[in-house]
Amino acid sequence: MGKIDDALQQQGITLPTPGAPIANYVPCVISGHQLIVSGQLPLGLDGKLDDRFKGKLGATVSDETGREAAKLCAINVLAQARVALGGDLDRIVRCVRLGGFINAQPDYATVPAIMNGASDFMVGLMGDAGRHARSTVGVAVLPFNAAVEVEALFEIR
Amino acid sequence: MGKIDDALQQQGITLPTPGAPIANYVPCVISGHQLIVSGQLPLGLDGKLDDRFKGKLGATVSDETGREAAKLCAINVLAQARVALGGDLDRIVRCVRLGGFINAQPDYATVPAIMNGASDFMVGLMGDAGRHARSTVGVAVLPFNAAVEVEALFEIR
Amino acid sequence: MGKIDDALQQQGITLPTPGAPIANYVPCVISGHQLIVSGQLPLGLDGKLDDRFKGKLGATVSDETGREAAKLCAINVLAQARVALGGDLDRIVRCVRLGGFINAQPDYATVPAIMNGASDFMVGLMGDAGRHARSTVGVAVLPFNAAVEVEALFEIR
Repeated sequence: MGKIDDALQQQGITLPTPGAPIANYVPCVISGHQLIVSGQLPLGLDGKLDDRFKGKLGATVSDETGREAAKLCAINVLAQARVALGGDLDRIVRCVRLGGFINAQPDYATVPAIMNGASDFMVGLMGDAGRHARSTVGVAVLPFNAAVEVEALFEIR
Repeated sequence: MGKIDDALQQQGITLPTPGAPIANYVPCVISGHQLIVSGQLPLGLDGKLDDRFKGKLGATVSDETGREAAKLCAINVLAQARVALGGDLDRIVRCVRLGGFINAQPDYATVPAIMNGASDFMVGLMGDAGRHARSTVGVAVLPFNAAVEVEALFEIR
Repeated sequence: MGKIDDALQQQGITLPTPGAPIANYVPCVISGHQLIVSGQLPLGLDGKLDDRFKGKLGATVSDETGREAAKLCAINVLAQARVALGGDLDRIVRCVRLGGFINAQPDYATVPAIMNGASDFMVGLMGDAGRHARSTVGVAVLPFNAAVEVEALFEIR
């Protein structure tokens, strides 16, 4: 078992087994030394979007639930990466960038604190290799009214 | 004539001849094996944004018109790529990523279905080489009140 | 002193000395020949977000202040890049892409004009090497209610 798998186990985190894509796009593309991961929603181990993680920050979704949703998005990012890398997460050299989209009311300005749920997870799991560049914005709406969506770029070997 | 040009012709699609940029940025940049395409709007062959493709999903723009707008954005992406590649679209190895921005009401959660208009076009045209990673979000507003904006990353040879 | 430093001096622009990151992400990541810069806000030389640069375009923030905010974001992008490049901005081969997020009212459609504040700065400073691909969108809200956020991708040597 690899180093990142060990870290996941130590944190008691099980990566979901991602379902097949439902449209004409793919969860991941590898191009040279880059692995690009499509925007991921806070899906559970059952592949479903729990009602708790639907809605807008600043309205029906609490800050704590928002951070949890962001973490779950990052877990799904990693689950997709694992499939794309043939099961070997240790091919990841570095998490280069995370893009965080927060489903937010127009007056909800603390979007970075929500996105920290994803960033803290990456660094907690991968250490310095998890330190990424990041852009966080509050958007009008997300697919299926998810509270958070996270996309990622990894450097791989 | 190249393979992608053939596929365009078979589908009866004419790529617009993009106009000169109107600000201090460029439609495409090539960096190494990557071709980065600026966010494209659903402009017609005349280079204009038809009123049909202005407005918000969930308000004045229907789902069907939204999908059509997304497809038109993807056509403009390809038109820009062709110019950047000196006319030779077959230098495209793969469509790596599409970013879809949907001008949407805050309660309009079916943004992925709109973006499928762009994704279906890419895959219909390029087959497996058209299968891309994707992020779709609903935004507050887009340039000139366009209904959809699509940006792209291609791997090229 | 390097070429870009000279150009900054000629324009009377002092780059801020960026503060330490306040969360589990970093301002810049270098991966191969790419330098990825996290989304930057219009912070002043004191590292603070002036009240003038808070709020939404189409509401409390004027077009002129918005363009100024976009320029200030680009200045912060460059300040972060300088640190990441060990002080040597001349390692920049090209500004490949800018992503512009405008904090905007849902009916404020002239977001590209705001983003020109960032684009004009880059080209004014770096000439042809500053000509970038660009995506501009109007978002529901930005961190700390900033009016503009700009992320960047540079090719470096």
